[in-house]
Amino acid sequence: MADPGLSVPMLIQFLDLFGTAAFAATGAFKAVEHKSDIVGIIILATITGVAGGVLRDVIFGRVPPVAIANPLYVAITIGMAVAIFFLYRSFKHYEGLILKFDAVGLGVFTIIGASFAYSVFGLNFLAMAFAGIVTAVGGGILRDVFVNEVPIVFVKELYASASFAGVVAFFGMLAAGVDVNVAAIPCIALATGLRMLAMKYNWNLPRPRV
Amino acid sequence: MADPGLSVPMLIQFLDLFGTAAFAATGAFKAVEHKSDIVGIIILATITGVAGGVLRDVIFGRVPPVAIANPLYVAITIGMAVAIFFLYRSFKHYEGLILKFDAVGLGVFTIIGASFAYSVFGLNFLAMAFAGIVTAVGGGILRDVFVNEVPIVFVKELYASASFAGVVAFFGMLAAGVDVNVAAIPCIALATGLRMLAMKYNWNLPRPRV
Amino acid sequence: MADPGLSVPMLIQFLDLFGTAAFAATGAFKAVEHKSDIVGIIILATITGVAGGVLRDVIFGRVPPVAIANPLYVAITIGMAVAIFFLYRSFKHYEGLILKFDAVGLGVFTIIGASFAYSVFGLNFLAMAFAGIVTAVGGGILRDVFVNEVPIVFVKELYASASFAGVVAFFGMLAAGVDVNVAAIPCIALATGLRMLAMKYNWNLPRPRV
Repeated sequence: MADPGLSVPMLIQFLDLFGTAAFAATGAFKAVEHKSDIVGIIILATITGVAGGVLRDVIFGRVPPVAIANPLYVAITIGMAVAIFFLYRSFKHYEGLILKFDAVGLGVFTIIGASFAYSVFGLNFLAMAFAGIVTAVGGGILRDVFVNEVPIVFVKELYASASFAGVVAFFGMLAAGVDVNVAAIPCIALATGLRMLAMKYNWNLPRPRV
Repeated sequence: MADPGLSVPMLIQFLDLFGTAAFAATGAFKAVEHKSDIVGIIILATITGVAGGVLRDVIFGRVPPVAIANPLYVAITIGMAVAIFFLYRSFKHYEGLILKFDAVGLGVFTIIGASFAYSVFGLNFLAMAFAGIVTAVGGGILRDVFVNEVPIVFVKELYASASFAGVVAFFGMLAAGVDVNVAAIPCIALATGLRMLAMKYNWNLPRPRV
Repeated sequence: MADPGLSVPMLIQFLDLFGTAAFAATGAFKAVEHKSDIVGIIILATITGVAGGVLRDVIFGRVPPVAIANPLYVAITIGMAVAIFFLYRSFKHYEGLILKFDAVGLGVFTIIGASFAYSVFGLNFLAMAFAGIVTAVGGGILRDVFVNEVPIVFVKELYASASFAGVVAFFGMLAAGVDVNVAAIPCIALATGLRMLAMKYNWNLPRPRV
């Protein structure tokens, strides 16, 4: 508690790596289920884990992207892919838990993306929403598209919507003068919590009748 | 007529936003038909409306891309998505009209892309064709791929071909010394008109026999 | 032999264009088989031939990408597309040969990508592997995804794995102090040879049991 200003970024950094690992796991599962070999598993795990952030950085002009410049990210996705290659059934047994971790990733990626846009464009809602959602859902969209499925973002319970809710709350708190680091934690919790509840109770937003 | 040099860019800017709205509508339709919720609809509408231009800007090094820096684009795609969410059947009733607007988007996106390459590389046909076609068809390719369909670019009547014809005419007129603003309008009309005629008469280019 | 320092880059440049043509051919085949018209064939051939390198350059911040700045690449992919449009059956007859050329492309794209990362980041294994593999498999992934197939990278015999082996050898040789130009040739040969052998003998890496 001596330096809370430092500890929040460290917590977010930790959650970011944690979310990357969870995202990578969902990619590795899909690759295994499509009968990929170890290298295909590594590639899909890595795409799922880092593509959202890479896309955000490339679109906003930060190159090389964080996930390339800092080898820790890809090291984590490769490590997760290798672990799932050897221990698929054990990991699959805990898929429910991994989907909860994935929800943590959704929340923290959203707020990291939105914070980045805030640092570039200031309090611009569209830029923050765009960066937050791209970071949170980009990797998952590519994962699903690459194994020829319609991305869950377009068809599942609250997913991008949970990310969007996190951005709205984050924007609102920053607009109200709350410090970025202070605002980050409850907004991550909001997006993560919404996603977890949506999975548990099968919540969906209404869809238009076709 | 007092300042025609200004009025053509304004017309093109207007057509650009108009085309963005039409592209977004085709994305929103697809999302609705795949049972997306409102956020999924917004995302697919936005991808369809702006991804071609974003891709062009990222490849040519203009970051942040126009469609991110100027919030009007994403505001339009979100507005269109929300409108189609609430009024799907009414909009669907006018799908024929929207496909005509989409053809306008195809034409204007082509020439905006080609003009941008011209401003960077000068009179370089390949760069102009690349930028024009990426701008015009990028969003539609991603829209179709993301709902697991083969992009219409690869299978439908003159689509990329209409864009290509617009680039050829534009290049030819610039090479002949015509002013960019003067050349833009007939070339947009050419690409748009070709696409409209192709839809109406089911025109196709010959395909190789397999 | 008067200036071997120059001749290796020239050989690599030649192999690069050769690989681009082979990649483009595989894209053109897929487009023909999905009943694309000539413009769709050109687009898919071009995406397959240059997207890997464009993706690498965009991610690493080299814009415009080499394949845009140097019109030779797109000229080759367009030329190949047009040739296959007119002579599909003749080319298809030699598909086996083209797949061997494709293996050459895999090898040379891998080492070109890895060399580029080496020139930016120095001896950083993850960056070299990332750039090498993106360059080698990016175009093929997009080709397959765009015609709605699961990318062969995820399902076929050694493909990304051959690329990965090339990177490992390349990294090892550079770490051992071998000159980049000297190391390039055997490492290209390794990746290419592994892929060719894998096709011939239907080699696969083990997959996890599901």
